[in-house]
Parts: sequence; C-alpha cells; structure tokens
Amino acid sequence: MQKPSLPKGTRDFGPQESIKRNYLIQAIRQQFVKYGFMPLETPAMENLSVLMGKYGEEGDQLVFKILNSGDFLKKSSRSDFEKGSQHLLPSLAEKGLRYDLTVPLARYVVMNQHALTFPFKRYQIQPVWRADRPQKGRYREFYQCDADIIGTRSDWNEVELTLLLHDVFESLKLRDFVLKINHRDVLFAMAAASGMSGREIDFCVVLDKLDKIGEPAVLEEMASKGGNTHKLKEFLDLLAGTTSSVERLKKMGEQLPASKGIEQLLAYFSQLEAFSDRQFKIELDFSLARGLTYYTGMIFEVKPTSVKMGSICGGGRYDNLTGVFGLPDVSGIGISFGLDRIYDVLEELQLFPESTQQTTTVLITHFDQESFGHGKKMVEKLRKEGLPCDLYPEPGKIKKQFNYANKLNIPYVITIGSEEITTEKYPFKEMSTGHQASLTLDQIISRLKGND
Amino acid sequence: MQKPSLPKGTRDFGPQESIKRNYLIQAIRQQFVKYGFMPLETPAMENLSVLMGKYGEEGDQLVFKILNSGDFLKKSSRSDFEKGSQHLLPSLAEKGLRYDLTVPLARYVVMNQHALTFPFKRYQIQPVWRADRPQKGRYREFYQCDADIIGTRSDWNEVELTLLLHDVFESLKLRDFVLKINHRDVLFAMAAASGMSGREIDFCVVLDKLDKIGEPAVLEEMASKGGNTHKLKEFLDLLAGTTSSVERLKKMGEQLPASKGIEQLLAYFSQLEAFSDRQFKIELDFSLARGLTYYTGMIFEVKPTSVKMGSICGGGRYDNLTGVFGLPDVSGIGISFGLDRIYDVLEELQLFPESTQQTTTVLITHFDQESFGHGKKMVEKLRKEGLPCDLYPEPGKIKKQFNYANKLNIPYVITIGSEEITTEKYPFKEMSTGHQASLTLDQIISRLKGND
Repeated sequence: MQKPSLPKGTRDFGPQESIKRNYLIQAIRQQFVKYGFMPLETPAMENLSVLMGKYGEEGDQLVFKILNSGDFLKKSSRSDFEKGSQHLLPSLAEKGLRYDLTVPLARYVVMNQHALTFPFKRYQIQPVWRADRPQKGRYREFYQCDADIIGTRSDWNEVELTLLLHDVFESLKLRDFVLKINHRDVLFAMAAASGMSGREIDFCVVLDKLDKIGEPAVLEEMASKGGNTHKLKEFLDLLAGTTSSVERLKKMGEQLPASKGIEQLLAYFSQLEAFSDRQFKIELDFSLARGLTYYTGMIFEVKPTSVKMGSICGGGRYDNLTGVFGLPDVSGIGISFGLDRIYDVLEELQLFPESTQQTTTVLITHFDQESFGHGKKMVEKLRKEGLPCDLYPEPGKIKKQFNYANKLNIPYVITIGSEEITTEKYPFKEMSTGHQASLTLDQIISRLKGND
Repeated sequence: MQKPSLPKGTRDFGPQESIKRNYLIQAIRQQFVKYGFMPLETPAMENLSVLMGKYGEEGDQLVFKILNSGDFLKKSSRSDFEKGSQHLLPSLAEKGLRYDLTVPLARYVVMNQHALTFPFKRYQIQPVWRADRPQKGRYREFYQCDADIIGTRSDWNEVELTLLLHDVFESLKLRDFVLKINHRDVLFAMAAASGMSGREIDFCVVLDKLDKIGEPAVLEEMASKGGNTHKLKEFLDLLAGTTSSVERLKKMGEQLPASKGIEQLLAYFSQLEAFSDRQFKIELDFSLARGLTYYTGMIFEVKPTSVKMGSICGGGRYDNLTGVFGLPDVSGIGISFGLDRIYDVLEELQLFPESTQQTTTVLITHFDQESFGHGKKMVEKLRKEGLPCDLYPEPGKIKKQFNYANKLNIPYVITIGSEEITTEKYPFKEMSTGHQASLTLDQIISRLKGND
C-alpha cells in the first residue's frame, strides 16, 4: 500500500496553525469591513479564456489547468498530439485554477456591470494556485486578502488604503514595517530622463542596488545598459541629500517639472497631515516597481523591518481593470495582503496572542460510568453558556485524561468523582499553574466567563 | 472580444450572498468549537493516488483532474493516446481537486498518526469539487462543513453529535426539521430476513416508497425483486403499529433478537433521556441508507420539513477510516453539514437575521472640498470606534450620495455642510424611517454603538 503524501508546494494546516490562520483572517476581514468594503467570493475554477493572456507568457504557464471531464480526448486530433502539449492543450482543458483575485474581480465587474453600484468597494479572501517551483516561503496554494475600490479616481482612496493598512498591522501588533511608495509616472519620467525609456524594469533593478553596491557601481551598471549616467547622478545626488519624502519629491519636481506623479504624491502627503496623530511608516522609494503594465498611478509595498522577508502587502492605482474584457475606463485602486507571509512574520516575532494557543477551554474528567453520566449533564450546561468545552468520551484512568488535556493545551480541567456528585463541588484545576480549587458548577461558569 | 463567463456549475457570491454565507459558516463553526472540535485545513489539490479508488467507479470519474504543469505530454506515448483518455490519464495528471473532506482527513490522520492525540476531534469547513452534471441545487463547487471524532467507539459520541446538530439548527432558528436515524446492522438484518441479503440498497429504495405508493405496492415490488414478502409484511405490520421510535425498536428486537444495532439504538435513546428539556426531532427510519460501504454503525440524516429539499446534514459511525491507506482499526463518527443547501433553506424560510442585510453602518456625505475634508476626520474617528462606515469618496451631488447609501443598504447617513462644520452638530438620518436628528459626533457614536 502506497504511503499517502501531499502534492509538493501544498500544506495541511493542523489545529494550531488553523486557529492562528483564522485569527489572522478575522483580523484582516474586520478592518476591511470597518473601511466599508464588502465581501466577494469567486469560484476556484475559471474558464481558461478568462485566465489566459492576463499574466504574461510565464503566468500562462503557471496557471493550473483542469482536464475536461469524461472522455477528455474526444476533441483531440492525433496531429495535435504529435505537435505537443501546447497544441493539444485547448482541446483537453477549458478551465484553470484561480491565479490571483484581480482577474476574477475584473470578470465579475464586467459580468455584473449593470447591477453593481459604483464606487464598488469589495474585499476577497481566498486561496490562489500557481504552478511555481516550490521553495521556502513560496507555495503552490496560498491565500490572498484583497481590497479594491473600483470606479473612482478620488485621491482620498490612496489615503484610505494607507490608513487601512496601518490599522491592519496595528491590530496584529506588527509595528516593525515600512510602507514604500512610488508612482509610475515618476518612475517612467526618471527612466526616460536617464535614457532608459522602455526599460523601466532594468532601470529599477539597478537603482534598487544602491544600498548594496554603492553609487559608483550603480552608475557603472546603468552605463553598461546604455543609461545616461550624467542625469542619473543628478538624481542620486538629490536623493542622497535628504531623507524627508516631501523634500525629496519637491527636489525631484525641479528636475522633472511636468510630472503629474510628483504632484499626486505631494498631495498624498499633504492629505496625510490631517492624521498627524498616526504613526505612519512611509518611505518614498524611487526604485519601487510593481506590475508596471497594470498599475498606472501610485504604487506601494509593505516590508517588515525586523524579519528577513519580502513584501507582505502591496498594491496601487490602476486605470483599466476590465479593458481585457472589453469594458474600458474602469479605474480604481487595490491592496493585497499576503496571509502566508504575514503568518510567518507574526510567528517569528511571536506576535500571535495567547488566545490562539487553544480553543477548548475546559475538559471534564471522570472515573466511572456514574461520574461519566454526571459529566454529560455538566458539559451540556457549560455548552449552554457558550463555553468551548469537552467531556472525555470514555471512563478510564484519570492520568490519561489529564494527559489528553495537556497535549491539547486545554487550560482547565474539572474532575468528577462519587464524592463530587454528592457535594456538587468539583476540583477545578488550572493546568498552567497547577492551582486547584473546589468550586460549584456556577462558580466554574462564572470564572470561565471572566466574571469572577 | 469574448464575453467573460463562469464555468458551468460554479457561482460567484456577491456581497449580499457572501455576508449570509459568512454568517452561516460562523454559526456552524461556533458550535463546532463549543463542542471541542479543532480546525483542520487541507489543500485543494490532492495526489490522484490519494483520491482515486475511494469513491467508487463513478466517483473516480467525477474527480476533477489537474494537468501536470509544463510539458504535460512528456511522459505520454502515442500508443496511450491511441488507446484513449483512460490510458493517457496517468501520464498527464498526478493531482486532482478535493472531492470530499473525509479522504483528506484519513490521509492527514495517517500522515500524522504519531503526532496526533486521540480521540481527535476535528472540524473542517472547505469547498469540494465534483464534475457532476450541474442541476438545481447541485453545483460543481460547494462547501462541506464536517466534524469528526476519531479514535473512540464511545456511544456518547452519537449523543454528542445529536446535541450538536440541534444546537446548530437552533442557532440558525431553523426548527422545522427531522433527524432520521437508522443503524447499518438493523438494515442488514432486516434485508437478510426479507431475503434481500447483498441487495440492501434495493431493499431500502423500495421500503422508502411506503408513504408514496402504499404497502401492497411495496410488497409487490419487493416480491418482483425476489424478496421474502411474508417476512417483510411482518416488519411492516410492526412499523405501522406505533410511531414511538423506542417501541418500534423493541418490537423489531423481538423479530431480530441478535441485532447489536437495535441494542445500540435503544441505548442511544436511553442516553438522550438525560436531556429531556431539549426539543429533539428524532425519527427512526428503517429505510435510511447512507454510504453503506463506509458507515458501520448508526447513520443519520437531517431533512427540513417545511421546504422541499434533500438532506441538509448527515453522518454516521465508521470502523475503518484509514484502512485504504494501510492504517487499520481507526474508528470514529462524523457529521457533515451542507452549507449551500442550508443557505437555500434559510433563504426560503427568510431566517437570515437582519444583520446580514448590510455591513457598512453609516455613510458620511458632503457638499464640497471643505466638508469632504471635514468628513475625512470624522470617518477616521468612527473607524477608531470600530464602526463599519464610509465616506463618499468624491464631493458631488448630495442626491447621488444618498442613492449610493440606499443601493448599498447602508442604514444611516450623516451629512456635512458648512454650517455643520461650525456647529459640530450633524444631520443624522435613519434611512428606513426617514427620521432625522441633529447630533454631535459623540452622540452619533453612542447611538451607533447601541449605548443610546
């Protein structure tokens, strides 16, 4: 018999991990709701006609395709087979697994454009699948937590998402992070001025190495790619001069006088001043480039500062969510939280609250059929009070039952013996301290509910 | 440009449906936790070696298979192609989509048998996928909500799941249902006595028609299938004699003296007497047959009584959860709630609470840049109080903003004009009644939090 195994790049989440994941999802969801976002769920399977061509050539490869059901070869010809996988694919598979939450959102908006009320604020927390090579921190199934505001160009949205993400991380007690921002226009203008028009990604990749390899090496590398190092040096001198984002922007504005992006970023910082009691952790980063073909305005990314980890949140403004589906001019702004990475960060920084260590609050133990029977009525009463509790399901050695509570991290144990049935006072033990008291059921309920 | 569409048998859930679904999931989860179950999540994809051969031949067909990534033909020979789909399949696909939550549970238990503490009480709420022909109430993607107690034969489990399911439906205010129970042993003994050994399903299907076609027709049909109608008539006379489940069981016991199942069912009813304040809705149904090859003890099913709908919950005791994976003698009992069907029942009976009609509690409207700016600070204050609220994201016609609140079912609207900025008292309108009051922000917060 074959030993069962998991597909590579996928994971089970046992009780302890699931409880923490639920805590995380609830925390993020609560902030989404607080900011007026409404939930959307889309199917795991999408038609390939919806998915393909939306994520670039590499993305097309990474979409998991689902074999047509029944006789999946019935539309296939031998000549397609001879020509190879890519020729055979269209006749074998019509569906694929969700690759992100943005394309399904675009499809949903197009299909429901006449029923929806805009601006449409939706959040979506669901798994996505990518046939990526699995490695540390990269899985083939992982959760995305997205919130988008669709159908408005209001610059209040950028501020709102900034407030939202600070609230999310504050609610998780995750304070060691930096929010990096940039603007596509600024990026394009800088690259153009540096003689790197059309090669913005190259430009960013090199610029991003500044801290690591230093200015001379960056200039040399840019020159080797045909960049205008004279102009770039001017930029770098500017950037080196100050750490204040607003001042840097103003100086950049002198170099790039026509940049709409710089104006928008300055307006963004100006709006934030109304929330000066907030502890913003914002840093302008001219080398930040995310989804260049998709985002058209401000872009941003959150990185933890005390843990080695890529971005745990990111997003930006887009002009054309649904153009690929024939509905032009649907603009908006989105933010995406990476559940699995945030989980890893909280774990490493030990930020999960104690409440995520256990679910069941109390276990009732017993010696024999009589005390077991008594326990059945007690567990019913505790559950009527809404308390997560359990009764050991068989009479047996009390030591085994206490071990059970220990292994499951159940913090309290009640023991019923024949004497306790008469006196109606029960040994109530706090497992972490070993402290034990003799209490009535009402007293126990009161204590477990924190009223005592 | 192709109009985007959904794969057949799949659905989007927009805000209104998602809110209701979240309410349902939370309600079921809360009861699972109250009864000491702990969460488990497994991947959407499982290896086909895990899935295949577990659901019968038809089930194997209904498993969605995932094409290997990259050049999926590289292990395929032309001769496999010529022989057809079933020959080609093993070289094309190694993974499939989760078909139920039981096989993944069995796999998880086997893979983690040394780390787990038994009895292992786990709940799991996740979607499953089946390549079934879509029809009303049957989808290709749907949620299961399972709870299982693994590694104990205690007959308290049957009682506990009975209490649990009554609590779940009570928490949903769904009171029009019946819990049908039977026992595999009783079923097999009855079929055997009626000359239908080995054809238990046929036996049940015919017996189940009693209410519809009457006794003579049932006897006739059973005879046509080679059944012993004399013996069956004896059973039917017994069953017709009384409606009390316990009395019926006792009478059946006289006919089938050696039945362990009758003893167990009588012990079950006897245990329930300790909970006589409960409104149980239990009905013995000798024609109930669920997963005959899987369940080995008591089986049960919940049907709504005031809505035409199949079972919305079911389960039973099994002796051999993990035998297919080489780990024998893992027994337990499980219950499964059908989220999508329960949703339909609650919808039809209008049992979703009013709170599921909306998420965002209040919208702030404004006339111009100045009042918009004032609103930004107000919305921040309301959100600091944890209130789900929103600020209309652009200045504009107040009528449009009110329409927005109406369409989104936002129950309260605050309006800010230049006068309000001075007086700090704001028109606060209850949309359902049209009632409007002039309140300070603190008064509004107090009212929205229900303290006023």
